[in-house]
Amino acid sequence: MNDLKQYIEDNKERFLEELFSLIRIPSISSKTENKEDMVRCANRWAELIKEAGADLVEVIKTEGAPVVYGEKMIDPNAPTVLIYGHYDVMPVEPIDLWNTPPFEPTIIDGKIFARGADDDKGQSFIHAKAFEYLVKTNQLPCNVKFMIEGEEEVGSESLFTFCTQNVEKLKADVILVSDTSMLAAGVPSINVGLRGLTYLEVKVVGPCRDLHSGVFGGAVANPINVLCDMLSSIIDKDGKITIPGFYDDVLEVSAEERALMAEAPYDEQEFKDMIGIKEVKGEKGYTTVERTWIRPTFDVCGIWGGYIGEGTKTVLPSEANAKVSMRIVPYQDPDKIMKLFKEYFESIAPDYVTVTVKPHHGGDAYVSPIDLPAYRAAEKAFAATYDGKKTIPTRSGGSIPIISDFEKILGIKSILLGFGIEEDGIHSPNECFPLEQLFKGIETVPYFYKYFAEMEKK
Amino acid sequence: MNDLKQYIEDNKERFLEELFSLIRIPSISSKTENKEDMVRCANRWAELIKEAGADLVEVIKTEGAPVVYGEKMIDPNAPTVLIYGHYDVMPVEPIDLWNTPPFEPTIIDGKIFARGADDDKGQSFIHAKAFEYLVKTNQLPCNVKFMIEGEEEVGSESLFTFCTQNVEKLKADVILVSDTSMLAAGVPSINVGLRGLTYLEVKVVGPCRDLHSGVFGGAVANPINVLCDMLSSIIDKDGKITIPGFYDDVLEVSAEERALMAEAPYDEQEFKDMIGIKEVKGEKGYTTVERTWIRPTFDVCGIWGGYIGEGTKTVLPSEANAKVSMRIVPYQDPDKIMKLFKEYFESIAPDYVTVTVKPHHGGDAYVSPIDLPAYRAAEKAFAATYDGKKTIPTRSGGSIPIISDFEKILGIKSILLGFGIEEDGIHSPNECFPLEQLFKGIETVPYFYKYFAEMEKK
Repeated sequence: MNDLKQYIEDNKERFLEELFSLIRIPSISSKTENKEDMVRCANRWAELIKEAGADLVEVIKTEGAPVVYGEKMIDPNAPTVLIYGHYDVMPVEPIDLWNTPPFEPTIIDGKIFARGADDDKGQSFIHAKAFEYLVKTNQLPCNVKFMIEGEEEVGSESLFTFCTQNVEKLKADVILVSDTSMLAAGVPSINVGLRGLTYLEVKVVGPCRDLHSGVFGGAVANPINVLCDMLSSIIDKDGKITIPGFYDDVLEVSAEERALMAEAPYDEQEFKDMIGIKEVKGEKGYTTVERTWIRPTFDVCGIWGGYIGEGTKTVLPSEANAKVSMRIVPYQDPDKIMKLFKEYFESIAPDYVTVTVKPHHGGDAYVSPIDLPAYRAAEKAFAATYDGKKTIPTRSGGSIPIISDFEKILGIKSILLGFGIEEDGIHSPNECFPLEQLFKGIETVPYFYKYFAEMEKK
Repeated sequence: MNDLKQYIEDNKERFLEELFSLIRIPSISSKTENKEDMVRCANRWAELIKEAGADLVEVIKTEGAPVVYGEKMIDPNAPTVLIYGHYDVMPVEPIDLWNTPPFEPTIIDGKIFARGADDDKGQSFIHAKAFEYLVKTNQLPCNVKFMIEGEEEVGSESLFTFCTQNVEKLKADVILVSDTSMLAAGVPSINVGLRGLTYLEVKVVGPCRDLHSGVFGGAVANPINVLCDMLSSIIDKDGKITIPGFYDDVLEVSAEERALMAEAPYDEQEFKDMIGIKEVKGEKGYTTVERTWIRPTFDVCGIWGGYIGEGTKTVLPSEANAKVSMRIVPYQDPDKIMKLFKEYFESIAPDYVTVTVKPHHGGDAYVSPIDLPAYRAAEKAFAATYDGKKTIPTRSGGSIPIISDFEKILGIKSILLGFGIEEDGIHSPNECFPLEQLFKGIETVPYFYKYFAEMEKK
């Protein structure tokens, strides 16, 4: 692969133009107004895979966003790598905090700023170009399948169905995914654990209409005050979640594993500076790394009620709402956690309000062993492009629920070979992706194919 | 005044067209985008007062919304009545709960539905037409001054300045105000007490940007969770406000007065049905009437933070905000309460967040004795148009801060002769005003002038 670096150098401008063409499509999966954009984005992905060298490319309709499938089968005896990625992105609100238009990629200080620049358009695009290089230079050692979906940010429901209906078509030896972060630029690491997710929405309704806060205030329960009381009661002073049964199935990680985690490079002051906080805060008895890797959470992701416009309105509102995400860990079950929350939330609701709990998507947590051939191949690939550096196995606090579904439905393990870095600010305003990470990714992935093919042959 | 009913009957259609011309102007004082509408609305009011018979009419510029002033001086020895009203209205959000366009008055079942239909365009319009009748039929027994402002819903700052600069011009024997409610249609009552107001906004900031709730969740304090905790801690389980010193200046109403209040017609089931609640809720040891008339409150009028759009976003937001109204009672001081809140809120803020408290407008509470000549004149006026019924003195939980300022600056007492009813839903979607209340008001006010002139002569 002596020509790899030169190939990337020669094609940089085209690569960026192609990536930007994906980013410019506002494929926000949670908004119905972007439904057409999902189709446009899927079609653009299909073109890119086709141009990169796939023999078969399909854009498959689903109940939701289309799934893009592509393949190049070179040899029935060669190992097969299934690339998974997603072309959908998060909403861009709060829009006024963006320094550049979220769907017009802008390069500043060597980083691409745009929604999806990292998560996951930038990262999954790495695989299209690594594949292109191997095909165009006749060095592809594996069969390759692409499966790019458009509902990752909203629960991957259609992909779940697609997988159950296409177990044979999706047969592979490993699933390769770039949708996570490295510990830092220049520090190769592979995710071997993900938290799961239970996401829901609650509504507290008091009076049947908004009331004048003077005329009625003091005599009528205010749904916002009530919602605050209820949410506040769910985390105790030690940072423990008070929902009965919540911790029952939590895998208590051994002292040995916790000691290993403590070795992960982590500087608390750097962590605090990076996100601008004065103090960390979390569950008593656990470190910051443990709190994000192996412990479950209860976060209000959004809250709204009453008058939120400019100036003042003296209103006692009819209702208050919140969106809640609970990150779960092995072996918590997202549906069970949803049920426990719903029962508890309804049980603590006072007589004078009505509460409803609306489930959104959820997903299992995931753990992967580090002695898989694919893990070893990824380690070697990193060593090849990162000056022989040793890869650190990490976990992530984030969730990719479909990863554990892949194992359940298809029986295939995933390797989470992420090229993002923390500072990319995925899901935030001014999401970005360093050009260095993009091109380093395109340089690393071909080695993965090479070493994986060699290992699987033995 | 034998021709009064006939005059109203003959002019009903014109009256409504004139009122509708006021309502159609979206004079929302809290929104900068409606700045021009404020001027249009003031000018329209000036036209109406002029046409009704005022000799002098002025639209006076201020730092904020213009003040409309008009007068007809018939005799230096006659008593002078100063009419106060406001042409500004509350915002209309949540807009999707309106059954008709908020600024296109629509008559359904004998009620005008529109923002401002009652508060205060409909109610203050009563005075323009009562005055018109007395002028056109040569029966006006008092000097009349009109002072209609455009900032009542946001704190009346410009009117405050206007009053301090025009004490001589505004000289009068009584201020007559229709901006409150009767106990019920057909039950004449006059407000003799109003609560004051302290209104503010709080912001809780955690991380310097929105974070991924998976990557950071569990290790970083979530500003929404923190805001909920803080707001929740401000009311204890007995419904008492926990801000130190909050109750220090509260006038404890005597057992005798509380016994009188208990006689006010009030049916708890009706109250609950009217606003669709299952149970009332408030400060322990006080009745529903007392909770709204003589006790202070702490209500969150609005809350927002994180992702509040459609679907889901797994975000750990950078900040959370709330708007808070505290209704205060004699002799609480709005500035002192603001200070106490700010100190307390800052003192309970944990290290890992930054909080800011932004004061909005406030105002004193108001009490008025019931042995004033003007009160007696209003009683007699009600008796004249409500079949001899006795007027019940009441209080209101609402605030008209400028009323206590009038007394302080101008040395004039106000009579709160309201024709609204509770069901009008002021400040809410589908605000309305029954035609019966409108026309009954126009019928009652001329009698007030008649009896007031007679009493002041004696």
